[in-house]
Amino acid sequence: MPDIDDLERRLRAGDRAALARAITLVESRRSDHQGVARALLERVMPYTGQAQRLGITGVPGAGKSTTIEALGVNLTTAGHRVAVLAVDPSSSRTGGSILGDKTRMERLATDPNAYIRPSPSGGTLGGVARKTREAMLLCEAAGFDVIIVETVGVGQSETVVADMVDLFLALLIPGGGDELQGIKKGLIEIADMIVINKADSDPPRAERSAREYRAALHILTPASPDWTPPVLTASGLNNEGLDRLWAQIERHREIMTANGDRAARRAAQNARWMWAMVRDRLDEAFREAPDVAAISAEMERQVRAGRVPASTAADRLLKAFGL
Amino acid sequence: MPDIDDLERRLRAGDRAALARAITLVESRRSDHQGVARALLERVMPYTGQAQRLGITGVPGAGKSTTIEALGVNLTTAGHRVAVLAVDPSSSRTGGSILGDKTRMERLATDPNAYIRPSPSGGTLGGVARKTREAMLLCEAAGFDVIIVETVGVGQSETVVADMVDLFLALLIPGGGDELQGIKKGLIEIADMIVINKADSDPPRAERSAREYRAALHILTPASPDWTPPVLTASGLNNEGLDRLWAQIERHREIMTANGDRAARRAAQNARWMWAMVRDRLDEAFREAPDVAAISAEMERQVRAGRVPASTAADRLLKAFGL
Repeated sequence: MPDIDDLERRLRAGDRAALARAITLVESRRSDHQGVARALLERVMPYTGQAQRLGITGVPGAGKSTTIEALGVNLTTAGHRVAVLAVDPSSSRTGGSILGDKTRMERLATDPNAYIRPSPSGGTLGGVARKTREAMLLCEAAGFDVIIVETVGVGQSETVVADMVDLFLALLIPGGGDELQGIKKGLIEIADMIVINKADSDPPRAERSAREYRAALHILTPASPDWTPPVLTASGLNNEGLDRLWAQIERHREIMTANGDRAARRAAQNARWMWAMVRDRLDEAFREAPDVAAISAEMERQVRAGRVPASTAADRLLKAFGL
Repeated sequence: MPDIDDLERRLRAGDRAALARAITLVESRRSDHQGVARALLERVMPYTGQAQRLGITGVPGAGKSTTIEALGVNLTTAGHRVAVLAVDPSSSRTGGSILGDKTRMERLATDPNAYIRPSPSGGTLGGVARKTREAMLLCEAAGFDVIIVETVGVGQSETVVADMVDLFLALLIPGGGDELQGIKKGLIEIADMIVINKADSDPPRAERSAREYRAALHILTPASPDWTPPVLTASGLNNEGLDRLWAQIERHREIMTANGDRAARRAAQNARWMWAMVRDRLDEAFREAPDVAAISAEMERQVRAGRVPASTAADRLLKAFGL
């Protein structure tokens, strides 16, 4: 077991090996590791929260890795320290991670002011999210001032990432007409910024796409009266438009800091996270209680078929739990 | 206390006084009333499920009452039996209901083949939803073959109603440009049909609105590959377009019955409802546990402020509950 005082000191000094070790403890299933991870987190909490937390989503092929690499190098060149994390619940099936792949971010992977960590593997989306949130706090304690959390546009992972960052950015590729249909309804609801990537291949087409998304966003009420999600074009490959992109992120930070939305969003995220963990564990304890487990499948079958009222079934399940 | 055999017999015969009595029992907080309501529901479950369940939302002024009255009278004239229920959680504050107001549906209120019931008052949205779902089952057992659940576009009540019906319809008023901004993002996600009402006042303007909504919907992936939410124009006041509206509802029913989506949607709704009730009661038991209640406000404050990791706080709360 690592010495916690030593680990904390090295982490706080920005030592990337210590950071990697600390994140491995957070991700471990061993209870002694979890104990150390918990204690370490509690110690470093005062040194967290100073980073710009940025979430990026995009379908495979949208150019996430290329764009994050280019943006990351721009930022380290400007003096920032950049950590790239990933949330990919599908890695629980493949046993590995398709995201945060260092081989696809060669320059950033060897940059002393960057740290890249693939998605934690195994476990539920909730578990992956917890590990990533805690890894983010450890990165902040290690002095990283920009945290990029990338995810892929599948299932609930986008919602989960949007709920752990200050700004959630959707990376799209140019398309027109029917191709635009690909955008998921939920994504429009949670994106704070939309970037049409790969604009280099056909700039007029990218501009046309951007206009169409602007028109579509126009009819939706923005989440904040002070911020209408901008739609930009960029080329991660050619490092074009990324300065404008970062300028918008800075503008978002200034506006949302001034009006208090940023602090309120983080406080609400923290509270939701705490109660979500409580509910998950409560739910798990409920479903695993032997008397509940003995009847729950049959109760659900009867309710799905419309043979038993849901309220009756809920009563029986709660009684089996002793409530 | 009513005789349950007698109540069941009269309910099944379509007696509206018995139906009203049964719904009152479902809404009652008295545990003896709830016992009878539960037993009655279990008995009549085999006779439920045959109705077309239609949800209608719209902001105040969209013409919901006028449209439901006209549609309802059309349907009873065609031989249907129509029940109108309402979900209005704000009635828990006012102590009464602003929806399902019989005085605003004069013809339907005196129609022997219609039954109008205002929103249950008091309680949480979850409680109002449970009562309305159970009232819907009682209406079906009483032989009503069209159930219309109306709600107003505030908070989560639209999501809750969409999750208890076969088709969720959003009633909008004509508008253009900036006025279109009023549509909530979440609404587009859950509406199976959009109707631009009050088309009589300015038909070209209504058509223009419809076109804009169609263009906006076009970029969103529909929930079912077999159903793209249609955008219609209508005038509830002049009973114009309501036949087309009903034809679309019938078409939705046919398509969704044929591809199995309707049965699957109902089964999923029932299962979600059961587990939601379990979770609500589990959550309540947790929060009310004295050792949890003693520390939860302080834990949440520390977590919101970013002083304590959410996982640490969740652990302490769960330990206080004995888990």
